[in-house]
Amino acid sequence: MRKKIKIGVIGAGRIGKMHVENILSNFRYIEIKAIADIFADNLKEWANELGIKNIYKDHKDLLGDPEIDAVLIFSSTDTHAQMIIESANAGKHIFCEKPIDFDLNRIREALNAVEKANVKFQLGFNRRFDHNFKKVHDMVREGKVGDVHIVKITSRDPEPPPIGYIRGSGGLFFDMTIHDFDMARYLTGSEVTEVFASAAVLVDPAIGEAGDVDTAIITLKFENGALGVIDNSRKAVYGYDQRVEVFGTKGCITAANDTPTNVILSSSVGVIADKPKYFFQERYKEAYIDEMRAFFDCIINDKKPIVTGIDGLEAVLIGIAAQKSLKEGRPIKIER
Amino acid sequence: MRKKIKIGVIGAGRIGKMHVENILSNFRYIEIKAIADIFADNLKEWANELGIKNIYKDHKDLLGDPEIDAVLIFSSTDTHAQMIIESANAGKHIFCEKPIDFDLNRIREALNAVEKANVKFQLGFNRRFDHNFKKVHDMVREGKVGDVHIVKITSRDPEPPPIGYIRGSGGLFFDMTIHDFDMARYLTGSEVTEVFASAAVLVDPAIGEAGDVDTAIITLKFENGALGVIDNSRKAVYGYDQRVEVFGTKGCITAANDTPTNVILSSSVGVIADKPKYFFQERYKEAYIDEMRAFFDCIINDKKPIVTGIDGLEAVLIGIAAQKSLKEGRPIKIER
Amino acid sequence: MRKKIKIGVIGAGRIGKMHVENILSNFRYIEIKAIADIFADNLKEWANELGIKNIYKDHKDLLGDPEIDAVLIFSSTDTHAQMIIESANAGKHIFCEKPIDFDLNRIREALNAVEKANVKFQLGFNRRFDHNFKKVHDMVREGKVGDVHIVKITSRDPEPPPIGYIRGSGGLFFDMTIHDFDMARYLTGSEVTEVFASAAVLVDPAIGEAGDVDTAIITLKFENGALGVIDNSRKAVYGYDQRVEVFGTKGCITAANDTPTNVILSSSVGVIADKPKYFFQERYKEAYIDEMRAFFDCIINDKKPIVTGIDGLEAVLIGIAAQKSLKEGRPIKIER
Amino acid sequence: MRKKIKIGVIGAGRIGKMHVENILSNFRYIEIKAIADIFADNLKEWANELGIKNIYKDHKDLLGDPEIDAVLIFSSTDTHAQMIIESANAGKHIFCEKPIDFDLNRIREALNAVEKANVKFQLGFNRRFDHNFKKVHDMVREGKVGDVHIVKITSRDPEPPPIGYIRGSGGLFFDMTIHDFDMARYLTGSEVTEVFASAAVLVDPAIGEAGDVDTAIITLKFENGALGVIDNSRKAVYGYDQRVEVFGTKGCITAANDTPTNVILSSSVGVIADKPKYFFQERYKEAYIDEMRAFFDCIINDKKPIVTGIDGLEAVLIGIAAQKSLKEGRPIKIER
Repeated sequence: MRKKIKIGVIGAGRIGKMHVENILSNFRYIEIKAIADIFADNLKEWANELGIKNIYKDHKDLLGDPEIDAVLIFSSTDTHAQMIIESANAGKHIFCEKPIDFDLNRIREALNAVEKANVKFQLGFNRRFDHNFKKVHDMVREGKVGDVHIVKITSRDPEPPPIGYIRGSGGLFFDMTIHDFDMARYLTGSEVTEVFASAAVLVDPAIGEAGDVDTAIITLKFENGALGVIDNSRKAVYGYDQRVEVFGTKGCITAANDTPTNVILSSSVGVIADKPKYFFQERYKEAYIDEMRAFFDCIINDKKPIVTGIDGLEAVLIGIAAQKSLKEGRPIKIER
Repeated sequence: MRKKIKIGVIGAGRIGKMHVENILSNFRYIEIKAIADIFADNLKEWANELGIKNIYKDHKDLLGDPEIDAVLIFSSTDTHAQMIIESANAGKHIFCEKPIDFDLNRIREALNAVEKANVKFQLGFNRRFDHNFKKVHDMVREGKVGDVHIVKITSRDPEPPPIGYIRGSGGLFFDMTIHDFDMARYLTGSEVTEVFASAAVLVDPAIGEAGDVDTAIITLKFENGALGVIDNSRKAVYGYDQRVEVFGTKGCITAANDTPTNVILSSSVGVIADKPKYFFQERYKEAYIDEMRAFFDCIINDKKPIVTGIDGLEAVLIGIAAQKSLKEGRPIKIER
Repeated sequence: MRKKIKIGVIGAGRIGKMHVENILSNFRYIEIKAIADIFADNLKEWANELGIKNIYKDHKDLLGDPEIDAVLIFSSTDTHAQMIIESANAGKHIFCEKPIDFDLNRIREALNAVEKANVKFQLGFNRRFDHNFKKVHDMVREGKVGDVHIVKITSRDPEPPPIGYIRGSGGLFFDMTIHDFDMARYLTGSEVTEVFASAAVLVDPAIGEAGDVDTAIITLKFENGALGVIDNSRKAVYGYDQRVEVFGTKGCITAANDTPTNVILSSSVGVIADKPKYFFQERYKEAYIDEMRAFFDCIINDKKPIVTGIDGLEAVLIGIAAQKSLKEGRPIKIER
Repeated sequence: MRKKIKIGVIGAGRIGKMHVENILSNFRYIEIKAIADIFADNLKEWANELGIKNIYKDHKDLLGDPEIDAVLIFSSTDTHAQMIIESANAGKHIFCEKPIDFDLNRIREALNAVEKANVKFQLGFNRRFDHNFKKVHDMVREGKVGDVHIVKITSRDPEPPPIGYIRGSGGLFFDMTIHDFDMARYLTGSEVTEVFASAAVLVDPAIGEAGDVDTAIITLKFENGALGVIDNSRKAVYGYDQRVEVFGTKGCITAANDTPTNVILSSSVGVIADKPKYFFQERYKEAYIDEMRAFFDCIINDKKPIVTGIDGLEAVLIGIAAQKSLKEGRPIKIER
């Protein structure tokens, strides 16, 4: 029997719990040795049921355990950079939910710590592991569309988050579009050089009052000459709308939405098919598991993670440019 | 923490192992306490890795453990009836892979033992738990197609099993079509009254030499007046082809194949989509888990199983009639 | 300017008028010189508007015009054989609506007259000219599915004809399925050797009282070993359901229904697409034109028609066997 | 028999000939009385074959015929405004191919002449009559998507025109995107207020050397607050790619491409469907006929045309803004 990898989890809110349960169900070669959460007391029963014994209030207790090989950081965004630095300094491999931070210096500081410690670092851009998008990516790499000319990303949520959440989210571009910025880079394999953001408050005036927008079209230019466009909405009444299209000299690849079933009813009112899967929990269920599988694989087989710290940095660079473009009403070049 | 249900597994060949691993990954409230298999020695390492301690050569050792609540029978078909009878007599709830037996008396004997012991009994018609077919069934029950007039089932394997397997399989109707006979009853909610089987050896002459057919069209009549048709092939080069259609007074429901992704490539040669998932392991992955979930739910919440012994009996009745129809070249009425 | 082919039309009911208007709109090299119809008086205004001058009560007047190269027979079915014989004897090329007759001797008599006169003869199996089915046929011929193992034809009308019509129609098999019998031969390129018909009255009891059935599943065996199945209903509430599927050693070809548009609405209730085109007038609009184009092409370029008298004879042979199978409750071999 | 409308055609190049033949095949109540073309001599045989007797070199001869009710202007773009003015002054109803002109003053001059003469004027934005796009438009008007938030238009040609053509075409925005600008207004029912154009030379460097671009993404803002995006390419190897999507508070409507058939081949290499119809002649065949039908209907029943002079003016206004945006690298507001 292979020696188990021992894992420590920092932050066990909704997304942290999901990951913990995914790991227990899917990776028998992984042991979750400890969880650190500032609300540790609330986690006791849940952790006990799962057979996880060490529950800490202070993440330093977890980082101090020399048996722990890797940490998974699911705490709030404002703590990510700090947790990365401390984990790297403790010599742990790191998986961190996106984004690293919204401050470029803070991101660079965290990545420097990772580099110095020479540990594995993977960022939680889970959509790169979606079966559809991964296949589009692979087909583009295999040359199926030839040179890429146009990339189009549709990304619409089924409903907006609470206004309170929006206020602290960093805004549409950092909370939602950041995944699409990463997807654009992932699919084209090229860096974004210019951004133009067009946006509006069309879903809910309260979102505007909170200083954010809820509908956006963002145009991108890439280093390799390709053009891109992302369209976002906080509210698609038919469910989570997540599609991509890559067009090039040899053809066009599209990825349609996943649906719960392939059942179609033809009746006197029309031919009716399933709506897309409702939201990210349903659509990206397997992708969340597969990103963990990839991370553990990097540790076990000493591989380079598929999502790196640079990917996290680049997405924020694009987000900052989009924000500035929207504010100033003009396209913004990205400076590195 | 809820008390775990304790399970004994009889037979750990390919399908048995799959179920065991599914259970360990998905149902933390289930404990697999023991496995009985005549080749027990070969299972030690695998079972040890999974943390299953009790490995018996003789299933009687397993049935003698009073802590075991339920048994899962995955041994060879010719032992099913015997195992059902012994398990029922030992007071265990029973999940058994299909079919119960090919002999009607033997089936009835087994079902009588189950009834006398008053234990839960579920048969392994896993396709009833497929997300697509379950939805078709539910929509038919909800009246979405009105009265059912026509049911059509396409069921084609990606490649034939080895000739050796075919010789012992009971033939196409009992090995392959039996699932479709059950599906026909499941979707229409009505008993089959007459069968006409048309078949041929078109895929591989060796199948004919083994006394079987590899291509078939079977017409069904139902008690409620509906008509049905099943088409089978042992070899569809594009993958596992599993579709159904239910047509009635208010409309028509179709379930298309599942595919690995929704990605489409438009190129100069055409518009190319994914082939269906390759075979039952891929297509019915979730269905195998869901049938176990349903079985455990019956035990925990004292519910009636979705697939009963009668379902097993009826499918064999239809199979026998189909066999006779093919031999005699005429439609055969089913006598109960 | 090329010399125009001069045409005489026998019978200008609904279907005849449609053909006449199609010809005037699409084939400028065709002149409709005369129309013969027993209700000639009612046609005057319509024919005048179209610029057709010669309207006869008696088809003999039309056949007696030596300038007329070809006749199109759209009169009632019971007159077809007689009209074919007289037209052939008059040396005219002949297009005749299906079927030639229901009586095999009468059909043979008509075909003999055609053969003796050595004129072109094309029968109105318009579905062979449907863009979808023609492409399936062509792909099968090109070997895209390899050897054909299974052919499946779905053919359902949006609503039954009036009971009066059904009484004189010859029954479901001769009125409706006859197109599917021809399609089965067209797609497989092989003759039918055995038929088993299963049918019921499920749509409207009045159809049963008129001595007919309204729902049917017909199993076919072909000379080349392939199996086939046709399913029919007189009433599909979602529209005209006309699909085919050909399965063989190298793959499977399916033709889905045509729809008015490709527009899809995703809303909170589902993802809704167009229903199939409503009935044969919409679905086979282009096919009706293309069968005429093919007929004129045969005359101009001295080609063999795509639908011959033998095709008409064979379809009736299958229909007679299906009728007998239904009556006697057993499969019927076709004798030639 | 209804009195025929008498038509004069100005310009009988490729597009003019197509319209003339469409009219002769589809509208028996229309008489094409005369054609004027500077290369009249080359048209004689073709016109004679069609039965059109009056062929003029000088359009004034045609406009001078008091019997002619309406003219169809298919001459070169630089003559459109002049022809409109003269035709209006001659009291003829006018159908004119798009665009009216590229010069705003010239357009206004032409539209003033039309207004003063009080004749019908319809512009050749044929895509408004496409069955798919018309249905999207109608569904948007019926409120099926609620308030429109996002409109997306994909418009890609199968191959670029000759470089010589490109030089005189006015550039991508005026030659190709102008249809999409009109489509954006047609689908949203709202005026464009701001344009940002991003474009590149990716298909063929020769297009760049001719001073044009071949790939573009154009972002639009609408008066009603909606956002829009158009993506263009001069070369889609899989055929003419013409899709639209309208997203709003109640859902999303998409129109996919038309294909020659609905036939699908499932083989060992994949599931292969038809490519889109090849180019505008195939895709918009019916739309070209339907725009003529609509124009004649306006004359006969005194209706307002569906595509007006203002529609022509607005599309050019957007094109000028897009051109300026591309040149200056910033979004441009549209001033009216």
